[in-house]
This record gives sequence, structure tokens and C-alpha cells, in this order.
Amino acid sequence: MESCTVLPFSRSLSLLSRRHDRDEACPCPASLRVKRRSSQPTRIHCQKMYVPGFGEGSPERKAANHLHKFFTHIAVRIVSAQLQSYNREAYDELTEFLSRHSMNDGDKFCADLMRESPRHQILALRILEVRSAYCKQDFEWDNLKRLASKLMGEANTTLMREYVLETSHVETESGK
Amino acid sequence: MESCTVLPFSRSLSLLSRRHDRDEACPCPASLRVKRRSSQPTRIHCQKMYVPGFGEGSPERKAANHLHKFFTHIAVRIVSAQLQSYNREAYDELTEFLSRHSMNDGDKFCADLMRESPRHQILALRILEVRSAYCKQDFEWDNLKRLASKLMGEANTTLMREYVLETSHVETESGK
Repeated sequence: MESCTVLPFSRSLSLLSRRHDRDEACPCPASLRVKRRSSQPTRIHCQKMYVPGFGEGSPERKAANHLHKFFTHIAVRIVSAQLQSYNREAYDELTEFLSRHSMNDGDKFCADLMRESPRHQILALRILEVRSAYCKQDFEWDNLKRLASKLMGEANTTLMREYVLETSHVETESGK
Repeated sequence: MESCTVLPFSRSLSLLSRRHDRDEACPCPASLRVKRRSSQPTRIHCQKMYVPGFGEGSPERKAANHLHKFFTHIAVRIVSAQLQSYNREAYDELTEFLSRHSMNDGDKFCADLMRESPRHQILALRILEVRSAYCKQDFEWDNLKRLASKLMGEANTTLMREYVLETSHVETESGK
């Protein structure tokens, strides 16, 4: 695997200053951050692959944005399931609201729910609370990492195995 | 925040056995797993909120599936950017292939790329290698968690502040 780029020092600094998202988890090794204090120009190795096309953001921010929407979906499901069992009236109101409003933009959905009526406002505040608690406490981040790595390994193996099997089959047939 | 459910022991066990995804990061506290060895029926508290609608999977698995596709997109961008700088012919071939094939299903995209020609096959193997390395080494999982939590806090604060400002404005106007 190639390391991404060997950059002149000044260019690396400008990249660093543009990537605010990664301030606390800088894509470059600690050695680089030490070198920033030195005034000597030098060439440094960034250990990570260069990912183009994210502008001011980062892949992590894009994934976090997606998870933000996902957590709102989940919070609505959680609250809906809770209401179904002990507050049928509120459950019906939420279901009816869901049928009229898209959840593509979770924040807009919550903002609209908040402004629908005082009863809907209570539901919205509860969804905000639940999605925050789910993100910070319930969601299994370590499990996500483990599952994603496992899925990646399995998918790569499957793709290569299928290709090899297919090719061997053709070779066997042509060898007849 | 409500804890999700108080379940009879037998029901909890059946739920546990269905959630294979979470085997290594069980949604219930260690106290439950200890109680499984006991034969006495008992009522236990699951500390996590019940999320309906994921069947045999879990929210973590759904998020992992999405990230799997995302990593394939990123790997294609990485490889494309690398080729652009030192192998223009391969870059053009990959760009041309991208214009003809959807990346909605990353695995299918790689499988098709692998079968296009021997040169495309090398590109496909490289994409497989890069997406695996990106998932396991480069992607900043801790940063993802930090950004998602930060985004959640900011979004909730913004939504509530906007609502309060809007309401105060109405009250101020009506109080004139």
C-alpha cells in the first residue's frame, strides 16, 4: 500500500490548517506536529492515503452527517415503539405526522414537529433527547468498527473467490 | 431517559440468541450474562433502549453496511487520484469504466471491474486492497464518534434555540 504523498512542509501546513475536522485526530503522525514548531523547511511522509473530493470536510465528517440522520430515524422508531405500548393517542399523532412529513432531513423533521402543536412539541423534545442519548450511550461504536472490518474482509474474500472459481471453471472447460 | 424494557428472563434469552451481530458487544450489561448461568427465573433490566425494526440485524450492522459502500467510493477516489498523477492510461480506463457503471453497489462494481479486462482486474484488486486498508488503518473511528456526538449536541441546541427565539419573538410581538 502506498503512503499517500511526500509533501513540502509549507504545503502540508496549509493542508493541516484547512482540515479543522481532524484537529483532534490529525491525519499525520505526531512527528509532523512536532516539526511544525521548527522553522527548517523539510519533506515529510504522511502515513495516510490522500482522499480527494472532500473539500473543507473529511470522510469522517461525511459519515458523521449520515449517522446523524440515521440516529434521528432510530430515535423516532424508539419513541414510537415506547408510545405504542403506553400512550396510544401520542403514538397515533406521531404516526400521522410521519405520514405527512419526510424524514430525509432529520433536523427539519424535528423542527416541524416542534411547531405542529404543544403535544407534538413534547414528542419532538423527546426525540431530540433520545437521539442524543442513543448516539452517546447506546450506539455500539466499537461494534460498528468490528462489523465494518469483518464485512470488508468477507466481501473482499468472496469477490476474489468467486472470480477465481469462475476463471478456473473456464480454464477447466477450455482444457477439455 | 427510560431504560428500554423489563423482560422476563426467557424472553431476554430468546432476544439475545437472535442478535448474532452483537455477540461480542452484547446490548445487555455483564450482570445479565452472569444470570444466564442461573436456572432461577428472574426479571432483568436492559440498560439500552429497544430499537424496533431491524429484524435479525442491528443498527450497528446497518451502519456498517453503509460504511462498506462508502469505503468503496473512497477507495475508488484514492486509486483514481493516485493513477492520475503517474499512470494516465489506467486513470482514463478507470474513469471510462466509472462513466458506464453505477457505484451504488460497491461489491458489484468491483466484481464487474474485475471481469472487464486483465488491466481492469489489476485496478479492481487494488481497489479491494485500498478499501480494506482504509477501513482498518486510515479511517478515524474515534474521530467519527467525536464528530457525530458534537454534531448531535450542536443540532439539538440549534433546534431548541431557534424555537425559543421564534416563540419569544411571537410573545414579544403579541405583548406590544
